[in-house]
Amino acid sequence: MTKLAGTVRVVGAGLLGTSLGLALSKQGIDVVIASQSQKSVDLAVGYGAGRLPQDSDNPQLIVVCVPPSITAAVVDQELRAFPEAVVTDVASVKGRIIHDLRALNAPIERYVGSHPMAGRERGGAIAGRSDLFVGRPWVITANESVPDSAVELVADLAARVDAAVIKTSSDDHDRAVALVSHVPQVISSLLAARLVGAEEADVALAGQGLRDTTRIAASDPALWVQIFQANLPAVLPVLKSFQQDLSSLISDIESGESSRAFESVMQAGNAGVNRIPGKHGGKHTNYSQVVVMVADKPGEIGRLLTEVGQIGVNLEEFQLEHSPSAPIGLAEIFVLPEVAEYLTEKLIERGWRIA
Amino acid sequence: MTKLAGTVRVVGAGLLGTSLGLALSKQGIDVVIASQSQKSVDLAVGYGAGRLPQDSDNPQLIVVCVPPSITAAVVDQELRAFPEAVVTDVASVKGRIIHDLRALNAPIERYVGSHPMAGRERGGAIAGRSDLFVGRPWVITANESVPDSAVELVADLAARVDAAVIKTSSDDHDRAVALVSHVPQVISSLLAARLVGAEEADVALAGQGLRDTTRIAASDPALWVQIFQANLPAVLPVLKSFQQDLSSLISDIESGESSRAFESVMQAGNAGVNRIPGKHGGKHTNYSQVVVMVADKPGEIGRLLTEVGQIGVNLEEFQLEHSPSAPIGLAEIFVLPEVAEYLTEKLIERGWRIA
Repeated sequence: MTKLAGTVRVVGAGLLGTSLGLALSKQGIDVVIASQSQKSVDLAVGYGAGRLPQDSDNPQLIVVCVPPSITAAVVDQELRAFPEAVVTDVASVKGRIIHDLRALNAPIERYVGSHPMAGRERGGAIAGRSDLFVGRPWVITANESVPDSAVELVADLAARVDAAVIKTSSDDHDRAVALVSHVPQVISSLLAARLVGAEEADVALAGQGLRDTTRIAASDPALWVQIFQANLPAVLPVLKSFQQDLSSLISDIESGESSRAFESVMQAGNAGVNRIPGKHGGKHTNYSQVVVMVADKPGEIGRLLTEVGQIGVNLEEFQLEHSPSAPIGLAEIFVLPEVAEYLTEKLIERGWRIA
Repeated sequence: MTKLAGTVRVVGAGLLGTSLGLALSKQGIDVVIASQSQKSVDLAVGYGAGRLPQDSDNPQLIVVCVPPSITAAVVDQELRAFPEAVVTDVASVKGRIIHDLRALNAPIERYVGSHPMAGRERGGAIAGRSDLFVGRPWVITANESVPDSAVELVADLAARVDAAVIKTSSDDHDRAVALVSHVPQVISSLLAARLVGAEEADVALAGQGLRDTTRIAASDPALWVQIFQANLPAVLPVLKSFQQDLSSLISDIESGESSRAFESVMQAGNAGVNRIPGKHGGKHTNYSQVVVMVADKPGEIGRLLTEVGQIGVNLEEFQLEHSPSAPIGLAEIFVLPEVAEYLTEKLIERGWRIA
């Protein structure tokens, strides 16, 4: 029972349900799409995300993809309606769901919490895409009464859609998403709110920095209020630490200490951003950079990176710096520090110009 | 004298100076690159951004591209050294420059303030690119004693590098950039600072929302402290309005009114983001993106990019995205829109998985 072999029942035909149905159906898995909204189900089924439910359905796994505020109730219903199935959900806050399931006296020994960390600013079946989960973290949280086989079944689901499985506790998960997702959402919205009463000519000067920092401020208020409400105890302390730092900055400015205060804010920002993993949970700062000048013609970058592969060095990150019509580009190759010098030597031997 | 016809002298060989030199040189304009750092000049000249200065130089236009704190002093020097040239600068705060020039008793009837609103988190000649200004606002501020011909010459410079010229007063400019650039920088840095003491496992869940909201937190502290210091009177009120809204939110949460408070923050964020005008055609909008899944082993990226070259398509930009612990990476290939579909087809024919 640890491998996905039977029917998967997806409850809810929004962005996540539809995307999951698309990804699984493509692999020949029997997917049932159920939703209270017949219109959404018809759209998802027409889109190729699965088939309509039948009375004879006996799903191996049920994935509840409904709004957070009704997730626990729907999980409870599904656990009772299908007494042999493992049930999981996709809600972005895990502690509240298990708390509510306990209050409902649900058979939680067949419930495994899930949070695929994939989304878009746009919701609905129509935004669904089979590659939504590719390379994204898929967090799995299970209480102690859940058998390993049920956890492994959900892990197999995540692996099937090319997500990166991370197992943790619901408390640790909720604290992490408060930090990396919920507080950034609040701050981005508060920042975008500055623009509401602004002069047209002022907003016209908006650049990429403002666009990036406020992109998620376009997210759905109804969904996010549910998320915030479910995760208040984890969100509040992070918001307060932000408030404290902002207040210190403002009071330093007012007492004529702005230069030192701004410098420390900028440096803390640099340090914070460096902690965001590049790949494999590593950090940008762990890599060494080798910059190579390349001619701007088809195939040059390919030739360079093929040779990096031939030299036997694994590329951790790669960035290309050039403008379309510049005669050369600068290829930045990030590698583990211990191989950087070797790579540089070998590239020079092969005739590459190192910047 | 309103059209650019003679030599352009660029003082400063950082990101902006080098990018400007690249863009103008490409059009056959005689560009001189001067800098106190011989190393930077050599790099910029080697990169194709212009030529070394000569005693016989008689520039029509001088563009001062040095850090904000020394901009006024360098503009003053250049005005005196080249008594027939129009001098402009690129500093992000305009009121302070004109104030300092007046204090230096500079011949400001040949000075026109400029602010090309183009930048990157990374500075230096090495990050320079000839399309840096394409579609970006280029603000021109001039005091009343400056002849139209000088203003038009700077406008012609901006137009030559495909920027969108906006003429305004230095006060209006400084208020606008506090809102759309300086405060977002402070807020992004304060947000990224939350990550400094966080658990490794928590930061590992970082997604695109956190990456976007904190991207500019990687910016150079020394440069930004100068910008903040020069624009304090405009930055402070916006920071205070943010502080006030954050404090209201926190006090509403603590008094049990969180649902209504979060809803109003999210709605204000939606309204604010809606006010940001569509892109002026920044670099990414000119390209189409093709995303390819690649196995994480030496040589795979090289093989991909070699095949892109074999297909005959020129790579405009390239980025490699890896998620924590994922066995595959997502290679983002940016190409001219007219070849994107062809490239996608050919890559699929060759067995690549397109995301």
